[in-house]
Amino acid sequence: MSGMRKALVLRRRPRGEPERDDFQMVETPLPEPQQGQVLTRTIWLSIDPYMRGRLYDRASYAKPVQIGEVMTGESVGEVIASAAPGFVPGDVVVGSRGWETHSLSDARQLVKLDPHGPPLSTYLGVLGMPGVTAYSGMVDVGRVKQGETVVVSAASGPVGSVAGQLAKRAGARVVGVAGGPEKCLWVQETLGFDDCVDHRSMDLEAALRAACPNGIDVYFENVGGAVQAAVIPLLNVFARVIVCGLVAQYNDPKPPPGPNLGFMIVKRVLMQGILVSDKPERFAEWRALATPWVKDGSLHYRETVIDGLENAPEALALVLRGGNFGKMLVRVGPDPQAEGGPTTA
Amino acid sequence: MSGMRKALVLRRRPRGEPERDDFQMVETPLPEPQQGQVLTRTIWLSIDPYMRGRLYDRASYAKPVQIGEVMTGESVGEVIASAAPGFVPGDVVVGSRGWETHSLSDARQLVKLDPHGPPLSTYLGVLGMPGVTAYSGMVDVGRVKQGETVVVSAASGPVGSVAGQLAKRAGARVVGVAGGPEKCLWVQETLGFDDCVDHRSMDLEAALRAACPNGIDVYFENVGGAVQAAVIPLLNVFARVIVCGLVAQYNDPKPPPGPNLGFMIVKRVLMQGILVSDKPERFAEWRALATPWVKDGSLHYRETVIDGLENAPEALALVLRGGNFGKMLVRVGPDPQAEGGPTTA
Repeated sequence: MSGMRKALVLRRRPRGEPERDDFQMVETPLPEPQQGQVLTRTIWLSIDPYMRGRLYDRASYAKPVQIGEVMTGESVGEVIASAAPGFVPGDVVVGSRGWETHSLSDARQLVKLDPHGPPLSTYLGVLGMPGVTAYSGMVDVGRVKQGETVVVSAASGPVGSVAGQLAKRAGARVVGVAGGPEKCLWVQETLGFDDCVDHRSMDLEAALRAACPNGIDVYFENVGGAVQAAVIPLLNVFARVIVCGLVAQYNDPKPPPGPNLGFMIVKRVLMQGILVSDKPERFAEWRALATPWVKDGSLHYRETVIDGLENAPEALALVLRGGNFGKMLVRVGPDPQAEGGPTTA
Repeated sequence: MSGMRKALVLRRRPRGEPERDDFQMVETPLPEPQQGQVLTRTIWLSIDPYMRGRLYDRASYAKPVQIGEVMTGESVGEVIASAAPGFVPGDVVVGSRGWETHSLSDARQLVKLDPHGPPLSTYLGVLGMPGVTAYSGMVDVGRVKQGETVVVSAASGPVGSVAGQLAKRAGARVVGVAGGPEKCLWVQETLGFDDCVDHRSMDLEAALRAACPNGIDVYFENVGGAVQAAVIPLLNVFARVIVCGLVAQYNDPKPPPGPNLGFMIVKRVLMQGILVSDKPERFAEWRALATPWVKDGSLHYRETVIDGLENAPEALALVLRGGNFGKMLVRVGPDPQAEGGPTTA
């Protein structure tokens, strides 16, 4: 196999918002797959808020990316060479790889996709890690009951949009929190949430209180910061808080103090931190459940696409300041399935 | 029924630590029990940290005590007049009443005690609300597994001492946190905890780290403040935090900020606020389970007794600054069971 592989390696640890110069593009000859491996060319690269955590030099649930290492990330790719049974060139797969034009992977770590199924990009969004995160959080922690009030922050994002739509399906009153009127409109009109509060409102707390006249039974936490502070006083007795993300603070090397835990006793609140990889069985479960909903158009999602691997750092910076609208993707190479631009349902 | 009833009513809302003059002793003629009621004379009055919350003029899980109202509290008393079937003078009962020498109660709200059973005071401590709180927290949230490390704050108190002993019975490594060498010695020597850290240590965090070489799997939170801050960085993946009390801040009208919730995601922590009254069925369950342990001396407890109803405010102030050692009790009247002083096992 001849040709070159381009990859973005970490050049220095970002201070605050990640920048292009924090990474460096390196070129190396394409590797040969060994027994059990496949070589893929990257089509779609997923950009997710958790990536900021990998750029700090501190232990978390995953090891940090080291200086000189390729930045990690999930991607959809096309097999171009295979030394693994059951994988042939032309197969399309999704897996956890890196910010690179080509990936050498252990085939057991990959999931083969139906090329005639939903848009390939959805396996990084609504049908992928963000969708499973929302599903898992709702099933394992939220346990929404009919008539309850559910608040979802980052409501137009790939996790929040699924979390809220699942809550609607469960018969809840669903209130989103999103940044700006355009996102709020989409959350209400397309996703069908009952209300959406713009977190840039003059008085976020009053706006949220007005949108939740019966208090809040479930909070799907994606952002932290001022939204979290506004939600907590409105929690009802026996409320559940799914602590999934705190994007508002990810660029901050020293996260601010949080809530005094007195409310947890007063309201007997359950809070649970979640990580999608803890329940790998949920991935197949969710794909089986949600694929028909994506096909029939009843589960809505939105994508923001930036072309070119070299723009991945900018895409990450965008996600961290809420500059994306829906799932953030980098198109690294042509999508065999698509005729034209990005897909939006 | 002739005679007088003395009661401590709230005169003004305490600022910071409660004081004697925040309350006023009032005398009224003894009431006659009406159909379904019994009149009791108070023997033991329970003093508990939660009482501080009732003295603020703000909503919580229970209504605040109003100015001019008798302060609420659990007590053990002897029936001196009854208009309720099944209750006769001489019966000993426990129930939620007030800071008063005599109480008129709905008999359905009372539990009759075996006068030949465990010491009557234990029904306010190890066998009562604090014991049930510990049991419920451990059963419903802690779910301690053999070999795990459990940290219990306020370890010599009536909740913490039971929580830790239950964790020992479950085969855990149990580390207490208590104030001062005398309490720590008792926690280790009598309660049998594996270690006890004095929260007045120069370097609490280092002392706790040394006592928990394998991290912390379960934290039974009774105090908040510096102890909480020291525990959080040591929590293991999938740790459980039972949020039961935050005594360190109860005198503070404006509680301080708490922990940033990032650790919950990194470690997938479960935090649950608990209130003993949410699971009333646990009371009978716990009495059945623990009474033999109290009788055979295998479940240890300790009591601090102050004589005289008029000293209840001081007793509360003492509890809030950790000046008690074990369960804080006010002896309001003679105990028909006891020959002499307080019982300690």
